[in-house]
Amino acid sequence: MPKLLPGTSPETEFYGITDSGLSLGRPVDEVVRALLNAGVRIIQYREKEKKAGEMLRECLKIRKLTLEYGACFIVNDYVDIAMLCRADGVHVGQEDLPVEEVRRLVGDSMIIGQSTHSPEQAEAALQAGADYIGVGPLFPTKTKKDVCQPVTLSYLDWAAAHSRLPFVAIGGIKRHNIAEVRAHGAKCACLVSEFVGAEDIGRRVEEVRSLWRSAQ
Amino acid sequence: MPKLLPGTSPETEFYGITDSGLSLGRPVDEVVRALLNAGVRIIQYREKEKKAGEMLRECLKIRKLTLEYGACFIVNDYVDIAMLCRADGVHVGQEDLPVEEVRRLVGDSMIIGQSTHSPEQAEAALQAGADYIGVGPLFPTKTKKDVCQPVTLSYLDWAAAHSRLPFVAIGGIKRHNIAEVRAHGAKCACLVSEFVGAEDIGRRVEEVRSLWRSAQ
Repeated sequence: MPKLLPGTSPETEFYGITDSGLSLGRPVDEVVRALLNAGVRIIQYREKEKKAGEMLRECLKIRKLTLEYGACFIVNDYVDIAMLCRADGVHVGQEDLPVEEVRRLVGDSMIIGQSTHSPEQAEAALQAGADYIGVGPLFPTKTKKDVCQPVTLSYLDWAAAHSRLPFVAIGGIKRHNIAEVRAHGAKCACLVSEFVGAEDIGRRVEEVRSLWRSAQ
Repeated sequence: MPKLLPGTSPETEFYGITDSGLSLGRPVDEVVRALLNAGVRIIQYREKEKKAGEMLRECLKIRKLTLEYGACFIVNDYVDIAMLCRADGVHVGQEDLPVEEVRRLVGDSMIIGQSTHSPEQAEAALQAGADYIGVGPLFPTKTKKDVCQPVTLSYLDWAAAHSRLPFVAIGGIKRHNIAEVRAHGAKCACLVSEFVGAEDIGRRVEEVRSLWRSAQ
């Protein structure tokens, strides 16, 4: 199965990220299945408060599910867990393990994504061998504790015009601003609370998709 | 250089564990150098509040230092960081990545230690392929946030009589109880706050060593 890179095909328009704290008490694999049923084809496992043993068990379940649906599975931060569950990729932030070091561990076939907050960081990610970058946070967000100030849409404009890597728009993206994100050139949008926090995840994804597509 | 296993030779009588929060503001490599100068030959890097990028930078420094002194270097929890800095070993808890999974990543040459709190867990660690076990926490400790109730000295007695793996005594070990720990059969004691929290680390190690040796 070819690996799906964010923003490179119509099926990769959304990038769903888990967050058990926002999932209304539902287990993470149930949430992921709902996202997959709704057609989301990139899933990132991002859990900050769990022990590694539990994270590995959850990632093994999600790996199985994502293979069933032909979806791409990316693990946030934990390179060891990404390797053990044979994820398609791993995603790191600016203060996590450097992309070059991650590459030494995971080899050439695993996707490496990196969060970036400026054109300089985007360029550095390219040089370091990242496969895609996160562009954000575009809007204020409470999902991440250690997040930096919003980069605003001007960085998204830059990325749309100049990024030499596939990029995903991220950070506070919700129904009320998704059309704006699309209009500024994003080909893939990451949503966390807007997806996993919905009572009816399928309906929510459909709603976001229709707003997104109508903005093209 | 042969790898030092805890408790297997006189030079491995102490196992020093870092904790920047208890180190009176001193950088972790300075603390580690003081431990090494004092003759401690097993160093574990255990930092819970730092980002992976900073942890890797610190571990690379400690790797260099420990090689200089012919000491054993073990990284807590983070298998990816242990691999990247070429540590001698990695240490995991009961809720971290399982020993068998860690072994798949690190291969046969890296030491794997596991914290255990009962004879059953000690036996499971042996079956899983651990190289040594932690036996504790023997006493109440504030060093670790997520620590379980003290196992008391009876588990140490069991380990001294029956453990088929080298073991280290851990958890709340200080000057006032180090002789008791030795008398109950420990051949290696882990100290965290008692070492790294001392104004004069060299003098403190000497003091603990003399209490330990006089209890033999």
